[in-house]
Amino acid sequence: MPTKPIIILSQPQLGENIGACARVMCNFGLEELRIIAPRDGWPNPKANDMAKSARYILDQATIYENLPAALTDIQSLYATTTRPRDMVKQVVTPKEMIKAVHEQQADIKVAILFGPERTGLTNDDIILADNILTIPVSDQYNSLNLAQAVAICAYEYFTYDKHHLTNELTFRKSEPATKQDVHYMIKQLEEALDKTNFFQVPEKKEKMMQNIGNIFTRTPLSQQDVRTLQGMLRALAEK
Amino acid sequence: MPTKPIIILSQPQLGENIGACARVMCNFGLEELRIIAPRDGWPNPKANDMAKSARYILDQATIYENLPAALTDIQSLYATTTRPRDMVKQVVTPKEMIKAVHEQQADIKVAILFGPERTGLTNDDIILADNILTIPVSDQYNSLNLAQAVAICAYEYFTYDKHHLTNELTFRKSEPATKQDVHYMIKQLEEALDKTNFFQVPEKKEKMMQNIGNIFTRTPLSQQDVRTLQGMLRALAEK
Repeated sequence: MPTKPIIILSQPQLGENIGACARVMCNFGLEELRIIAPRDGWPNPKANDMAKSARYILDQATIYENLPAALTDIQSLYATTTRPRDMVKQVVTPKEMIKAVHEQQADIKVAILFGPERTGLTNDDIILADNILTIPVSDQYNSLNLAQAVAICAYEYFTYDKHHLTNELTFRKSEPATKQDVHYMIKQLEEALDKTNFFQVPEKKEKMMQNIGNIFTRTPLSQQDVRTLQGMLRALAEK
Repeated sequence: MPTKPIIILSQPQLGENIGACARVMCNFGLEELRIIAPRDGWPNPKANDMAKSARYILDQATIYENLPAALTDIQSLYATTTRPRDMVKQVVTPKEMIKAVHEQQADIKVAILFGPERTGLTNDDIILADNILTIPVSDQYNSLNLAQAVAICAYEYFTYDKHHLTNELTFRKSEPATKQDVHYMIKQLEEALDKTNFFQVPEKKEKMMQNIGNIFTRTPLSQQDVRTLQGMLRALAEK
């Protein structure tokens, strides 16, 4: 397991944002929050309200007077900013940061630093960082809400190598139909149609049945789906 | 250009969340918002406050009484839910959804549907969707804030094929140093050290200089960095 990045909020202004950060950290498997000089003091009831079930992250959060005090054990620091800086620093995206976190030694302590809502990080803050983290945003409006910026970083952390886990059909109560099930259903349909005047031109029947068969094989069907279709077919044929 | 997914909020409760959705849509290049039966009516001052510079997305948003009315022109619908459903539907992650959006015909209208904060989408809502969209979240706390869920989808849309654009050093005011610059600087350092008693054991000097050289070549340096280091060195040598 790679180290979990620590989230550091420098001088956050709104309790709602601090609480929303805690909630989304919890949603995406992060735990440790450090807060430097929160404007409205600490604890903050608005933060607690917004955190909902992630309240424990706020209860465990540690508060510092200044940035160096929050960094005593941090070995790798990413500073988030969208603005160009006249500084020679590697600029990485959230995805690149998380890849680096997964590839580095597992015991290196990593933190991601976020500035105050209105002004962002100062150059003095950024000097201490190994890398600048920039979330790609539209030129139209490049100012991300603080908790949204934390959300993107936490999401990239949590979903690293998880992007295909849910890629499966949910056939919860029924297994996928076998091809034989589907074949018999199509045969049953053909027999029912044979008893009508559906196939008016006999030489076109084969091609028509191919097309009809493909309608039912194009979409994955469960065993229950096939039983339902067969039931409908019987009902219609008997009418 | 692929189609831009339309965001549909079904019966959203909090104006703050609607506004935060609009802001993050704008941050990540989405524009069209549809809202079904917002609990507190429309327009909503709290939504406007939270949207900040994305207010125009709220002004252009269209309001509907029910879900079918909002879908008159939608050809591909993703329904977001974290809960398991007893339905046979393809479940995709945000990344898979956005890949599909980029790969489909550019003129197909796609929408992503989000349910009310407290209860999420109903099964009746979900039946209309082609796919279930599930954002991977921690078992610890799987309830994402509405605007955070929109943020993740919009972020995946915007950053599709953008994850390496910013991967460059920002040497804004100065070019990267040439290897010759760095070589001369190291030589200058060696000469300065020769005049001190730093190399006490002559046979160890070569190895020591290799290590020192590697300190300065391990990190990318700008031309200005090299001039600064040389200036420091001269100042120290003259002292």
